[in-house]
Amino acid sequence: MGPAAHEVQRQIIDKALKLYVIDASGVALETGMGGRTNTIMQTCFFALSGVLPRDQAIAKIKEAIKKTYGKKGEEIVRKNYEAVDRTLSALHEVKVPDQATGTLKRPPVVSEEAPDFVRRVTAMMMADRGDELPVSLMPADGTFPSGTTRWEKRNIAQSVPVWEPDICIQCGNCGFVCPHSVIRAKFYHESRLENAPETFRSAPVTAYGFPETRYTLQVYVEDCTGCGLCVEVCPAKSLTRSGVKAINMRPKDPIQEPQKANIRFFETIPVNDRARVDFSSVRGAQFLEPLFEFPGACAGCGETPYVRLLSQLFGGRLIVANATGCSSIYGGNLPTTPWTVNAEGNGPAWSNSLFEDNAEFGFGFRLTADQHLALAQRLARELKDSLDPELVDEILAAPQLTESQIRAQRERVAKLKTMLLKRTDDKAKDLLSVVDQLVRRSIWIVGGDGWAYDIGSGGLDHVLASGRDVNALVLDTEVYSNTGGQMSKATPLGAVAKFAAAGKTVAKKDLALQAIAYGNVYVARVAMGANPQQTLLAFREAEAYPGPSLILAYSHCIAHGYNLQHGMHQQDLAVASGYWPLIRYNPALRRSDRNPFVLDSARPRIRFKEYAYNELRFKMLSHTNPRNFERLMGMAQQVVDQKWDIYEEMASRAGSRFHPDASVDLP
Amino acid sequence: MGPAAHEVQRQIIDKALKLYVIDASGVALETGMGGRTNTIMQTCFFALSGVLPRDQAIAKIKEAIKKTYGKKGEEIVRKNYEAVDRTLSALHEVKVPDQATGTLKRPPVVSEEAPDFVRRVTAMMMADRGDELPVSLMPADGTFPSGTTRWEKRNIAQSVPVWEPDICIQCGNCGFVCPHSVIRAKFYHESRLENAPETFRSAPVTAYGFPETRYTLQVYVEDCTGCGLCVEVCPAKSLTRSGVKAINMRPKDPIQEPQKANIRFFETIPVNDRARVDFSSVRGAQFLEPLFEFPGACAGCGETPYVRLLSQLFGGRLIVANATGCSSIYGGNLPTTPWTVNAEGNGPAWSNSLFEDNAEFGFGFRLTADQHLALAQRLARELKDSLDPELVDEILAAPQLTESQIRAQRERVAKLKTMLLKRTDDKAKDLLSVVDQLVRRSIWIVGGDGWAYDIGSGGLDHVLASGRDVNALVLDTEVYSNTGGQMSKATPLGAVAKFAAAGKTVAKKDLALQAIAYGNVYVARVAMGANPQQTLLAFREAEAYPGPSLILAYSHCIAHGYNLQHGMHQQDLAVASGYWPLIRYNPALRRSDRNPFVLDSARPRIRFKEYAYNELRFKMLSHTNPRNFERLMGMAQQVVDQKWDIYEEMASRAGSRFHPDASVDLP
Repeated sequence: MGPAAHEVQRQIIDKALKLYVIDASGVALETGMGGRTNTIMQTCFFALSGVLPRDQAIAKIKEAIKKTYGKKGEEIVRKNYEAVDRTLSALHEVKVPDQATGTLKRPPVVSEEAPDFVRRVTAMMMADRGDELPVSLMPADGTFPSGTTRWEKRNIAQSVPVWEPDICIQCGNCGFVCPHSVIRAKFYHESRLENAPETFRSAPVTAYGFPETRYTLQVYVEDCTGCGLCVEVCPAKSLTRSGVKAINMRPKDPIQEPQKANIRFFETIPVNDRARVDFSSVRGAQFLEPLFEFPGACAGCGETPYVRLLSQLFGGRLIVANATGCSSIYGGNLPTTPWTVNAEGNGPAWSNSLFEDNAEFGFGFRLTADQHLALAQRLARELKDSLDPELVDEILAAPQLTESQIRAQRERVAKLKTMLLKRTDDKAKDLLSVVDQLVRRSIWIVGGDGWAYDIGSGGLDHVLASGRDVNALVLDTEVYSNTGGQMSKATPLGAVAKFAAAGKTVAKKDLALQAIAYGNVYVARVAMGANPQQTLLAFREAEAYPGPSLILAYSHCIAHGYNLQHGMHQQDLAVASGYWPLIRYNPALRRSDRNPFVLDSARPRIRFKEYAYNELRFKMLSHTNPRNFERLMGMAQQVVDQKWDIYEEMASRAGSRFHPDASVDLP
Repeated sequence: MGPAAHEVQRQIIDKALKLYVIDASGVALETGMGGRTNTIMQTCFFALSGVLPRDQAIAKIKEAIKKTYGKKGEEIVRKNYEAVDRTLSALHEVKVPDQATGTLKRPPVVSEEAPDFVRRVTAMMMADRGDELPVSLMPADGTFPSGTTRWEKRNIAQSVPVWEPDICIQCGNCGFVCPHSVIRAKFYHESRLENAPETFRSAPVTAYGFPETRYTLQVYVEDCTGCGLCVEVCPAKSLTRSGVKAINMRPKDPIQEPQKANIRFFETIPVNDRARVDFSSVRGAQFLEPLFEFPGACAGCGETPYVRLLSQLFGGRLIVANATGCSSIYGGNLPTTPWTVNAEGNGPAWSNSLFEDNAEFGFGFRLTADQHLALAQRLARELKDSLDPELVDEILAAPQLTESQIRAQRERVAKLKTMLLKRTDDKAKDLLSVVDQLVRRSIWIVGGDGWAYDIGSGGLDHVLASGRDVNALVLDTEVYSNTGGQMSKATPLGAVAKFAAAGKTVAKKDLALQAIAYGNVYVARVAMGANPQQTLLAFREAEAYPGPSLILAYSHCIAHGYNLQHGMHQQDLAVASGYWPLIRYNPALRRSDRNPFVLDSARPRIRFKEYAYNELRFKMLSHTNPRNFERLMGMAQQVVDQKWDIYEEMASRAGSRFHPDASVDLP
């Protein structure tokens, strides 16, 4: 028994437990099971528990494997069998000493640096002792403090990315796709490195006009899930060391402690000034602080990178209405939330509503913000002379499109606030209560395809029809992911799902075309794995567009049935096959007589099947019903071709007629 | 006091009433109020009741008129003032005799020929005596007998159409647009005329190959509402008598009794054999018996002609799921229903569901019909040898596309039924319970725009996405008509409605394009006033298409604010302006490599405003806010132009790629 926490040792001795260990991940890796250890651990249980005679138990397990995985293919069954067989020899008993001799102590549930509420309430719930909390400690209005996932330090990855400054081209791709916001970049004056820990890495920033400026990519190793997406998208390879990129997965244990020190140091470097960052490129966006971090989403999640991007781009003035689904779970998974604030205390406001009314819920945010703004403007006008007339005029007339304009407005409003805080009259108090609304709000309605295509589709349609300035982000996993894999109207033709066990026979609903039919809705279809730059552009255009916007974001998902390390590659193939054309429909282009419809992806270069066959949701049918598989793949290809023709033709349209005689054009 | 019903006279005398009369319709006509007598009758009330001094009352009425109609324009206010002034001189007191001397008797509430239930139950409710009915007389399962409006004989029209056989070209237009199914046509052998009443009219049928065949157009004068739509659409004019068409409005009183005799005679002539009628033309369709007749809809209703057409085309095998709205009120307005049966007792099945679930409700009809059919087929196969093997085989293999094929199937099923009725075994009884399902069912989901565009839109979308064979008919009045004139997503830009008091500023939702986005939904946009032949074609194509279908039917409505006599002309202008392009999108055309999208109307030949300005819903804004009116008309024109460009381009697409290698192409 090597170094063990003292408390654990004592419990084992007190309870007279037997202790067995197995390197389950090692067995899984050796037998081609990837990260899946469920079969191995199940075998351990039956081997040790004596519930059934060992041989009989093993036979039953194999029977169950055949039944459960048979339709996923012979290969998977064989791997599982092998895992079962190897498990027995890898299982070792640990001799338990008579006395607890361990010198390690279990770390506290959360760091002592955590805020009071986190230590007194959150930590108790994290330790499964929430029942012991008195009601009086619960927030009376249901508002929970944000930024609490950072105290979890789940430490679930065995391998984590390690950065190679010499190879890195500082493109920002790795951080852009990271589902857990564990890859952060900063640039800073080299003088800051004076007190850096020994293992802290940096490189000269690869940009002209920034002498003496260093760049660091810091990995938050304790929060990393080890999905490997960052390595997959890294375009920079070592010229000398084969297979080595600018970022590579390495065992975490040896580097954990030095990296913790590096993170602490990294956090002393200020976040880069948003007004100095180039929002328009992935390279620039890496310097925007994520205000959504360390969510409890699956390793390799295809949704969270989009959510993180939202928080980076619009974080300080972002208001999110979140439909029930995965994003509501990892977004507000009591006791912690990944939504957080910046150093100034600004961050997104977030709330979760139902499947069936989330668009309406977010629409309410819009109406409320508009009312608050109108009230703030009226009161500011009324109080103008008793405050600072020039300042108030500036506030009321301020443009708020660029980040520097918004920063300037924030500063003006802060000044106004200071003045208001000194006053005691009712009007001033009223203005104070809504004064923050003078900084432009960004309303986003977020949810999955189960919400947007199905259960909430009527409401979404209604809100898009309103003409009001709301932005809807659909995290399209093409299936009810959180609910258990049921078919939605977003499920593609040919995919297997619950309620479509023999493969779906009707095509995916084209929500983009439906929204485009309104003519005054900004619509984009994005897939960051295929074109992160287009994703970034679409998010920014959607937000800038003063009417309703809809973004359909391809989100790979464990429900698709493959190792999510390849998620971004599958996104690329979805686009390459023409199944997921990247588009942007921007009604604002009509003002300059241009075609509002832009097709951002190239003509299909692979067949639909070449994309689909990598995913079990499609492939499993080739085992269970090969004839139907071929038939459905043929139909799916047909739909892809038909759709592509339509999209290509829409893209080739001339600009729509513009009527200068209409005093107001759409929207 | 002229001839009056004895009972009425006695009541007046017994209650010592004062009696005044006024020819309110005459005053309305003279003062340009059209059919509106509300102002006139209100004036009578105040003039006689003494609630206020007469002069003061008149002043108040005029004040109210100004307030109520002011925004509809000076002209309307002036007409109302004039009506008030003329009322006083047209109001006469009738001297009441001491004794009841009248010889007339009130007719019974319903004819004595009416069925037992109608006489015992329906008639009581019609006479406002429903409270006196014992519960035991109510149908235990809620099923009410159909075909009951025919016993109402509401006699609300003062003028009714009178047919001129010599001028008529027998085109069928008048019957096609009739909202109350009061115009019926039959052709028959001339020998049938032997016992015809003296005033019964007929003409040689205008078709080659039908010697000795006569044609009669019979108007059901007691059921007519006098809307005049039939006269408007009549294309045949007298060469000798100016202003006289083949059908003309004439005072009803002088012809009522002779016409009642004519109707009785007309009903002795058999309905024309559906298998011998040309379904493909309006001319032919006039001979199809309406199984929807005499609804309680408004005079000139724009919805009911479409509903009637449904009943004519598919009546015997039609199943209707009806959303809440006007069509559910006139469709099942207790105690009567306009849905009826043919001479063989076959007719539509109809039920009303909610605003929010009607598509799903109708989808359930489809699933049920499919299950019943499958059960019937299985049982027929199992019982085949003990019945008539040849007959059963024929039934199971029968094509049921044309009307003659369906008639043949009906006859086969009737034979089978006869055999089954003789048997006592359970299986035979089971088959008997579902045997009618062996005749193909036609499922229609019917409702207004409040249902289809708004409250039920999520469900409609879901059902269209199912790929199943259901047909949705949207009676698009572009506003919540029955609910009181609230804006829906179908309300056009620029129209005034509740919740859009200053004119709607966003464009009408393009539900057609949204449905077309599915690729496998049959979609049509029709307006019978613009092209009845296209309407007919769309209804038939939609029904024949084996997947989901959607028909958007332009329905003029009293909520649009003009004399509905011109409803069909307004429909024509809606199409002529390009606002309502007639389209058919038939996915079945892809099989022959053709473009599924067909644009049936010509390029706009008038401006949107020329159509809109005839309707108060648009025009009223020109009084209340002329600047906004001009602005909105400009925007509306812009939307029309943009949409037209899109439609025209879609129509010019080449046929979609067809994949013979896909073993099944999209339905």
